[in-house]
Amino acid sequence: MVPHLTTSLTGPLRELERLILDKRPDIEHWFRNEFIDHQAPFYSSVDLRNSGFKLAPVDLNLFPGGFNNLNPDFMVLCIHAAMSAVQKLCPDTRRFMLVPENHTRNLNYLQNVVVLKRILEAAGLTVRIGSLIPDLKEPLELTSAGGDKLLLEPIQRKGNRVMLDGFDPCAVLVNNDLSSGIPPILSGIEQHVLPPLVAGWSTRRKSHHFHCYDRVAESFAKLIGIDPWFVNPVFSQCGKVNFSEKEGEDCLATNVEFVLNEVKEKYAQHGITEAPFAIVKADAGTYGMGIMTVKSPDDVRNLNRKTRNKMAVIKEGQPVHEVIIQEGVYTFENVDGGVAEPVIYMMDQYVVGGFYRVHTERGIDENLNSPGAAYKPLAFETDCQSPDCDGAPGSPPNRFYTYGVVARLAMLAAALEVEELVARAESLEVKAANA
Amino acid sequence: MVPHLTTSLTGPLRELERLILDKRPDIEHWFRNEFIDHQAPFYSSVDLRNSGFKLAPVDLNLFPGGFNNLNPDFMVLCIHAAMSAVQKLCPDTRRFMLVPENHTRNLNYLQNVVVLKRILEAAGLTVRIGSLIPDLKEPLELTSAGGDKLLLEPIQRKGNRVMLDGFDPCAVLVNNDLSSGIPPILSGIEQHVLPPLVAGWSTRRKSHHFHCYDRVAESFAKLIGIDPWFVNPVFSQCGKVNFSEKEGEDCLATNVEFVLNEVKEKYAQHGITEAPFAIVKADAGTYGMGIMTVKSPDDVRNLNRKTRNKMAVIKEGQPVHEVIIQEGVYTFENVDGGVAEPVIYMMDQYVVGGFYRVHTERGIDENLNSPGAAYKPLAFETDCQSPDCDGAPGSPPNRFYTYGVVARLAMLAAALEVEELVARAESLEVKAANA
Repeated sequence: MVPHLTTSLTGPLRELERLILDKRPDIEHWFRNEFIDHQAPFYSSVDLRNSGFKLAPVDLNLFPGGFNNLNPDFMVLCIHAAMSAVQKLCPDTRRFMLVPENHTRNLNYLQNVVVLKRILEAAGLTVRIGSLIPDLKEPLELTSAGGDKLLLEPIQRKGNRVMLDGFDPCAVLVNNDLSSGIPPILSGIEQHVLPPLVAGWSTRRKSHHFHCYDRVAESFAKLIGIDPWFVNPVFSQCGKVNFSEKEGEDCLATNVEFVLNEVKEKYAQHGITEAPFAIVKADAGTYGMGIMTVKSPDDVRNLNRKTRNKMAVIKEGQPVHEVIIQEGVYTFENVDGGVAEPVIYMMDQYVVGGFYRVHTERGIDENLNSPGAAYKPLAFETDCQSPDCDGAPGSPPNRFYTYGVVARLAMLAAALEVEELVARAESLEVKAANA
Repeated sequence: MVPHLTTSLTGPLRELERLILDKRPDIEHWFRNEFIDHQAPFYSSVDLRNSGFKLAPVDLNLFPGGFNNLNPDFMVLCIHAAMSAVQKLCPDTRRFMLVPENHTRNLNYLQNVVVLKRILEAAGLTVRIGSLIPDLKEPLELTSAGGDKLLLEPIQRKGNRVMLDGFDPCAVLVNNDLSSGIPPILSGIEQHVLPPLVAGWSTRRKSHHFHCYDRVAESFAKLIGIDPWFVNPVFSQCGKVNFSEKEGEDCLATNVEFVLNEVKEKYAQHGITEAPFAIVKADAGTYGMGIMTVKSPDDVRNLNRKTRNKMAVIKEGQPVHEVIIQEGVYTFENVDGGVAEPVIYMMDQYVVGGFYRVHTERGIDENLNSPGAAYKPLAFETDCQSPDCDGAPGSPPNRFYTYGVVARLAMLAAALEVEELVARAESLEVKAANA
């Protein structure tokens, strides 16, 4: 079930894995208590990069698609985790309205919605699909990649509640990253909304997430006694960029230089001989759009028109003005001859699956979340018998445990991040009420 | 993965399954809230009997062995459920002392301990085995059926704590049903004990469990609109029996008659033409010992010496003075040519697996938990695609969901039962302190 891993890892990562396996009781104890204090998001997915010497999250999605890429043998894990999440977040719920992206022609995305619906139903919920498609007047039946029928219904607003025809849901599960803002029809409703609307990309920022991640990585590194850099990519940000108008280039170049210098120093400190690189991407949502790899500050000066156009707008035509400059983490993972990165899925505080995003036409220093990527499900192999358990940190079951730990670090950061977003929104509401 | 089911169910059970599938949102909503109010046991297993017209629990084990019989592909479910249980019951725990039965020569039981230890370790705990074997002075290394080494260590009592050499556990997980009483070495310790010691067979009674189950079955039946008898076996009890001395025969005969008459009435009411039967068994623990099938009150009068001897003592030579007389539920399940009954395993509030107990030399009205029984793991098949989901309540995935529902009813009854046992013990302690 586990795709053949041609990675041949040597040096520090084996040590990191060994350490993580050895410290498992401390790590799980720490997570257990963190997740008592901080509510894990309903669901999330994390893109990891594994360079052999470093294993780090590079993105966390609070509206994960791709449930259809998980190993179907482990759907029952999703079901139990969904039961746990519902019990913690909205125990009185019986009916869910699932609000997907507006992609009606992306049949794989529709398959994700089918699988998600099936998980929620198996967890004991009645589920119908409420669509944000503008001007949708009538229910729209679509067929997914797997040949399943999906009925998208227009959302109706009645006072402080949203409904579908003859269906009054207790909770709304959003699987739409809200790139173009919080839809007025969902705003201020009295039903539970999961995740909170402020977690959408109109208010969320990657840089905020990675600021929260800094704190989590710091605590974790202290717990197991490592340099936090081994699980944490250096980053910086620029707040006023306009690629179309060539504005903000100096800010970009300065921050690219800062990130590359930091990485250079770490590489020297840990005896790593690869060339540092950085990733420049939109601070708010990407969907694999608006991303570039840079190896020198000059790479962001005098961009050609094509690159500027590529960087200027992302999903749903949203202009990019804020960017994050993140340490590039090489992926030395290779699946069936393609460059690969693991994507780990979580529901509530549990790792429920994952897959490799594989790209045969991309380099080890490039973003793989782009057209042409293929997916290979990751299985759980937990029957950790000796000598595997004691002797071979590089074997798939142990590697997957390590991935699960780093993914949960990012998810914990997202929990802190959402807490802060909600608190900020509430304090703005109070200010508005008092104004 | 699912053993071939030769059951050909017709009539009421299909209706029951249909109803349970249809009412899934209500049922899961109800369980969700019951398990907020009542803490599920750390682990439990339930013996079910499926007669086609009736699906009911006949026993619930709070110290389940047999984890080695579960499908190893789903160990990760046990791991997540164990994580959830630890988080709820003792989040500060890092180290578990696992206290098994004293069976050193039952290699399959030792394999159960190996699997249980592996689950707890994968959930992030450090686990060592503390043994209650009398006069164990030195650690004892044993080899399980699967060839794994297991180190049994003598438990040391230091003040109000139990320890092993160089190991101070935060919690004690008991996998020993305490048939011969609460061991003094564990009594009154300050560490968490799971399940509470009062759940052992020196204080627990089957009849108390089934009194609690009556309430649960009543609420559930009301929720889905059925006669509770469809999921609940009639029972009665006798408190003063001595099989060796032929005492208590009248009480037994009267109660057998009562149970058989109740069942006869229900059979007539629901048009069932089978012959009613009853099971007489020890009210406190059995381990498959001290059980007999009776079809008339005369069957318990003038018992021959062999039967009296069989009924007089159970595990660890404990004499039987209290018995439960329970409606016999036919099993019409048949696996690979043997009579079969499903056993469902739970950790925390989650169904984590199950198996069929199969016996080729027993009848459909006999106890199958006895020497010679074989085991077939039950798989989860939750990929509930149409038309299975809509059309075929008798198909394995749906049957298994139904089993999980009825098993959870018994587990909820056990939660109430343990609550009452703990409250009773506490009130006795208060009385003793005030005396």
